[in-house]
Amino acid sequence: MKGTKDYYPEDKRIQNHIFSVWKKIAEKYGYEEVEPPILESADIYKKSGQEIPKQMYTFKDKSNRLLTLRPETTPSIARMVSQKSLPKPIKWYSISTCFRYEAPQSGRSRQFTQFNLDCLGTKSIKADAEVILTAIEIMKSFNLTKKDFYIRISNRKLFQDLLNNLNLKNTQQIARLIDKMDKISKKDLELSLKDLKLSQLQIKNLFKILETKDLEKIKIKSQGLVELKELFTYLKNYNILNYCKLDLSIMRGFDYYTSTVFEVFDTSKEFRAIAGGGRYDELAKDCPGVGYGMGDIVLTLFLEKKKKLPELKKEIDYYVAPINEAVIKQAIKITEKLRQNNNVEIDLMNKNLSKQLEYANSINAKNVVIVGEKDLKNKKITIRDMKTGKEKKVNLTSII
Amino acid sequence: MKGTKDYYPEDKRIQNHIFSVWKKIAEKYGYEEVEPPILESADIYKKSGQEIPKQMYTFKDKSNRLLTLRPETTPSIARMVSQKSLPKPIKWYSISTCFRYEAPQSGRSRQFTQFNLDCLGTKSIKADAEVILTAIEIMKSFNLTKKDFYIRISNRKLFQDLLNNLNLKNTQQIARLIDKMDKISKKDLELSLKDLKLSQLQIKNLFKILETKDLEKIKIKSQGLVELKELFTYLKNYNILNYCKLDLSIMRGFDYYTSTVFEVFDTSKEFRAIAGGGRYDELAKDCPGVGYGMGDIVLTLFLEKKKKLPELKKEIDYYVAPINEAVIKQAIKITEKLRQNNNVEIDLMNKNLSKQLEYANSINAKNVVIVGEKDLKNKKITIRDMKTGKEKKVNLTSII
Repeated sequence: MKGTKDYYPEDKRIQNHIFSVWKKIAEKYGYEEVEPPILESADIYKKSGQEIPKQMYTFKDKSNRLLTLRPETTPSIARMVSQKSLPKPIKWYSISTCFRYEAPQSGRSRQFTQFNLDCLGTKSIKADAEVILTAIEIMKSFNLTKKDFYIRISNRKLFQDLLNNLNLKNTQQIARLIDKMDKISKKDLELSLKDLKLSQLQIKNLFKILETKDLEKIKIKSQGLVELKELFTYLKNYNILNYCKLDLSIMRGFDYYTSTVFEVFDTSKEFRAIAGGGRYDELAKDCPGVGYGMGDIVLTLFLEKKKKLPELKKEIDYYVAPINEAVIKQAIKITEKLRQNNNVEIDLMNKNLSKQLEYANSINAKNVVIVGEKDLKNKKITIRDMKTGKEKKVNLTSII
Repeated sequence: MKGTKDYYPEDKRIQNHIFSVWKKIAEKYGYEEVEPPILESADIYKKSGQEIPKQMYTFKDKSNRLLTLRPETTPSIARMVSQKSLPKPIKWYSISTCFRYEAPQSGRSRQFTQFNLDCLGTKSIKADAEVILTAIEIMKSFNLTKKDFYIRISNRKLFQDLLNNLNLKNTQQIARLIDKMDKISKKDLELSLKDLKLSQLQIKNLFKILETKDLEKIKIKSQGLVELKELFTYLKNYNILNYCKLDLSIMRGFDYYTSTVFEVFDTSKEFRAIAGGGRYDELAKDCPGVGYGMGDIVLTLFLEKKKKLPELKKEIDYYVAPINEAVIKQAIKITEKLRQNNNVEIDLMNKNLSKQLEYANSINAKNVVIVGEKDLKNKKITIRDMKTGKEKKVNLTSII
């Protein structure tokens, strides 16, 4: 299947490594794992912006219901919190398979796995800060530093107020253009803004806004500004200000964000956003929320590029090699005894010893237990250390 | 969505417990995790029997290709091994989300997760024995005993030879009837067999076969009989014969099984098969295999019924409770320090102390760190043990 991937053991080990970092950090911060179903009603993605609904796998089931393979997890999380009365804040994470019908290319796959971390039930900006902190902690756990990544942060309310202040009306269209800023030249952006009937002065002022690096220089009255200032204060308290940049050009394509929006970005600007999220106070009924998603595909490419993926191999403590069928009963006994505390394999193909050693080597076995007839008569077995090649005879009674 | 499930934290904890047992046993026996994609071409399920193709979610994507949400994993595994040259035996497991459009009822869900364990690349019956052993080890790891479950074992070749010996031709139809034996009365089965033109004697002899409990009593010449005897010898060597029963009525609905077939069954016969598998030597090109699937839905119901599910709670070591906004900076410092080795939460809702204690209690926090202004002036904090209710003052310097 074009655009999907078979995870062989070497791929799955890497993916499991990534999953384990996600889990470790989420749980350290008190987030609990949840899992919504993969099949959802198509209508919950109405607020997922322009792009996503176009990329959805939607089909009718045998009862003629319109189903979608989830393209993202936030709408399901919003649905789940609205179905139950839960103590607040609700701190959840999920590691969810998602589907988007995109043209297959580097960094994209039609099936991917997304880590989502969400804090719901509170409007406090403290939650925004904590959520951003977990994203930074995840990146740091992969041994990435501030040379490798940073967080771009904006606020939808502030952006809206700044546009209003310039007397700009068609703010949604402008936002969509700016969302594509990284992909087009400044000149093309300017032309497109002119097409939207912006004056030269408005365009100049808009670019000024997009380049603002210092919150203190913004002088308008805006709830979004208050929120952003509060957020940066908490980020300072958490001592992570050096990972964070104000960037009012951050849009995120989703219509449900209402306030804070942010992206984890590589400093080399080679990849798409590694993670993205924000505050969505209107998505779930009476339950504000803030969170982000981090996909495994771009992250894996990024970690590969930065050489931050550990070398992971199959871990086998003992491979038990029976010399022939006559010793099989004893070999099985030894195997099962060793399995009480170790990962152990035994021959399943009636291979001769040299073929068995070859296989033991291919699976990276630390030791090979050679079970021979002669040895057994003396109540011995031979253990070979596969790293050093050294062999030692061991009393059978010391094992079984 | 009817027939699918939202996994809230309490559900996901149970599922993760089950996943961790699956992983632990699979890895102890040297099986490595793989993961095929959820979307597959519909045509790989042609050998999956009569039922499954009827229950598949199949739809056309935007390129007009016929896609299926995988209803089971074995055909994907067979596809994966045939795509690569790999050292043999290939020992793989997977924990895969699968989809079947069944009428929602107890023990069934349209989305479920299946553990699959497969040993490929060898025709040796040793592999069949090991695979069955892992299923037993999994059940034992859930603290289930031979009072709770047993393995029913048959062999397709032997069954075929026994039917041939009775001069029965329409063996596939007969097999399908027998497959439903548990759901219909013996009398109805007899009537249906008569409809298939079986004589009274043939029916009598067929029932005799189905009731055979001792391999030694079967006197025909059959490769399947040789295999079964070898299998039972290995099961004896592994000391698991007391979990295993010969049961020639085991069919498994899948057309791709060629030899050994088996089911993990509850002794009370209350549930559907908890696991099922067999040998499929013709499914992958030039690569014989044996394996089984164990779904999470029936297993969870079974473990619930047997009271074998542990009580799993959220694990929080410390909840940090700042008394007011003035102490927040210090509270954050304490929190982050404690997080180096613990799971820690801090207030995200500006709650007063009594509400914070209430929340800390609801999330099962072991300790609450109370950060007050007065305490801080004396460079102290208060730690409350939530189990005993006892409080102690601790020097701030001992933490940060």
